[in-house]
Amino acid sequence: MSCVRHLQTRLLPTEDTDLGEEGQESKPTFDFQTYMIQKVNVVNQALDAAVPLNDPVKIKEAMRYSLLADAKRVRPVICIAACEVVGGSESMAMAAACAVEMIHTMSLIQDDLPCMDNDKLRRGRPSNHVVYGEAVAVLAADALLAFAFEHIAASTVGVPPSRVVRSIGVLAGSIGPEGLAAGQLADMSCERISVSDVGMEDLEFIHLHKTAALLEGAMAVGAILGGGSDEEVEKLRMFARSIGLLFQVVDDILDVTKSSEDLGKTAGKDLLAGKLTYPRLIGIEKSREFAEKLNKEAQGWLSGFDAEKVMPLVSLANYIALRQQ
Amino acid sequence: MSCVRHLQTRLLPTEDTDLGEEGQESKPTFDFQTYMIQKVNVVNQALDAAVPLNDPVKIKEAMRYSLLADAKRVRPVICIAACEVVGGSESMAMAAACAVEMIHTMSLIQDDLPCMDNDKLRRGRPSNHVVYGEAVAVLAADALLAFAFEHIAASTVGVPPSRVVRSIGVLAGSIGPEGLAAGQLADMSCERISVSDVGMEDLEFIHLHKTAALLEGAMAVGAILGGGSDEEVEKLRMFARSIGLLFQVVDDILDVTKSSEDLGKTAGKDLLAGKLTYPRLIGIEKSREFAEKLNKEAQGWLSGFDAEKVMPLVSLANYIALRQQ
Repeated sequence: MSCVRHLQTRLLPTEDTDLGEEGQESKPTFDFQTYMIQKVNVVNQALDAAVPLNDPVKIKEAMRYSLLADAKRVRPVICIAACEVVGGSESMAMAAACAVEMIHTMSLIQDDLPCMDNDKLRRGRPSNHVVYGEAVAVLAADALLAFAFEHIAASTVGVPPSRVVRSIGVLAGSIGPEGLAAGQLADMSCERISVSDVGMEDLEFIHLHKTAALLEGAMAVGAILGGGSDEEVEKLRMFARSIGLLFQVVDDILDVTKSSEDLGKTAGKDLLAGKLTYPRLIGIEKSREFAEKLNKEAQGWLSGFDAEKVMPLVSLANYIALRQQ
Repeated sequence: MSCVRHLQTRLLPTEDTDLGEEGQESKPTFDFQTYMIQKVNVVNQALDAAVPLNDPVKIKEAMRYSLLADAKRVRPVICIAACEVVGGSESMAMAAACAVEMIHTMSLIQDDLPCMDNDKLRRGRPSNHVVYGEAVAVLAADALLAFAFEHIAASTVGVPPSRVVRSIGVLAGSIGPEGLAAGQLADMSCERISVSDVGMEDLEFIHLHKTAALLEGAMAVGAILGGGSDEEVEKLRMFARSIGLLFQVVDDILDVTKSSEDLGKTAGKDLLAGKLTYPRLIGIEKSREFAEKLNKEAQGWLSGFDAEKVMPLVSLANYIALRQQ
């Protein structure tokens, strides 16, 4: 659970304790670390159970290799959190949460392919195609994407079918030609363009599509499954949009400032590849200021919800802003 | 409409005319050619409308290049036919029929990739990756797969949501780790094995997963959306399984006996690649006998349905058995 361990000192004293009137430290009202550990554990168990190592073994093994690698599980956690914020339960969103992580994993496998970013390291170990070969990696990615939709359709419990249909439409929309796929393509195109030819607008298009879209999908789906009103779904989607941009700005910063060992993936890769990033476009300091602004924007979208119920999301936005890997 | 033109002489005299008691030829009771032209036209229009050439243009263009190429549209037509056989309407199955063709197109784009079959010709023109590059082809394939599910979820009309959810589960299942993806992987694995090491069982696994699974999915989804009983859905699925194997046996035979120009794709490729095929395993004549047996099996699954309503399927099985490209 290395992804949440560092939060204890960095995040919890600020976000998760309540200094009483006398300035005396009282019992924390919300323990984000415990929340994350519990959610990540339950998601990991559900992912393990969703793709058992049975026949046909070869493709299941390749799927599991990437799906069950040590990971932050940010997307499934926000899917569940959104469901709970609007009054739903963890179990209502669990199949969708797993589906979101399957889709995210699919995108990572593809991102690492020789014809894309050609990255040999992912989540602290060799990329899928390095271990299983390019053709199997492509098929494992397909299988994860297809199974994600099968899983939501077949394993969502306690939710009216109309909500499931709407969720599938929203999630699929977030990764299709007007979502993730468009972002990946724009990202690759901009790699080959001089930094003077591209601006904040191009960079925002890439990140809104490549990163924010699936986070928005995860959150909207959780809120829909939990029975949220249209307004609630939209506010939570906008929260996800802000933390999506935030996530990418921080990712860009970490790529420049951290080692491969810290990150569990190749550091400095974006810079070397001439990729369009925030630090490259506006510098490290301005990137940090932008991250702070996005965190505030994100928190703003949570106003009007039950203050206690949104604590996981408030903390999560801070976690994304302050993460070190 | 080259795909149906040859049926007029090859198929209709046998299947679609009724020799009266005196042996006099009466008016055909079912005109398969007209049926196919009408269905293919309406599917082509629906596909064109489903993926308009709007922003982001680059990925839409790559999707449309493969999706709107001249093609037989067997899968969408059987999806609609299954829906109509159980009492549903064309419009109830249209979104799903388009989704099935999007998924099929996705699998063709991937199949042609350098890391897979490395085929430069498809549907009579250069493969997607030859025109747009490998990375864009991979993303266009993703986008088609994701959009397929968005399309069913968002654009299916006149059907209760519970049927839509079930359809999505069945369709996704047909192409995931226990469907199409497993078939593709097994196909690639067997390419590298000596013909003496593999048998009919391996070949059947490949074809049941690589070809039959999506046809089964298409047909089951049509029947589900049309409100078919579990028994009807299962019988139509089994029909699709038989014509799936039949389709592949005939494809294997055509690969050996036809030219690239006739096929609109590279002929003799399977043989040159050392691919496991029916002709390679049991010879051309036994392959033809097997095809005939499968056609009879397929027709058997249609007993019990309204004789008039199943005519498109009866004719379609014969079309697949007798097709020349």
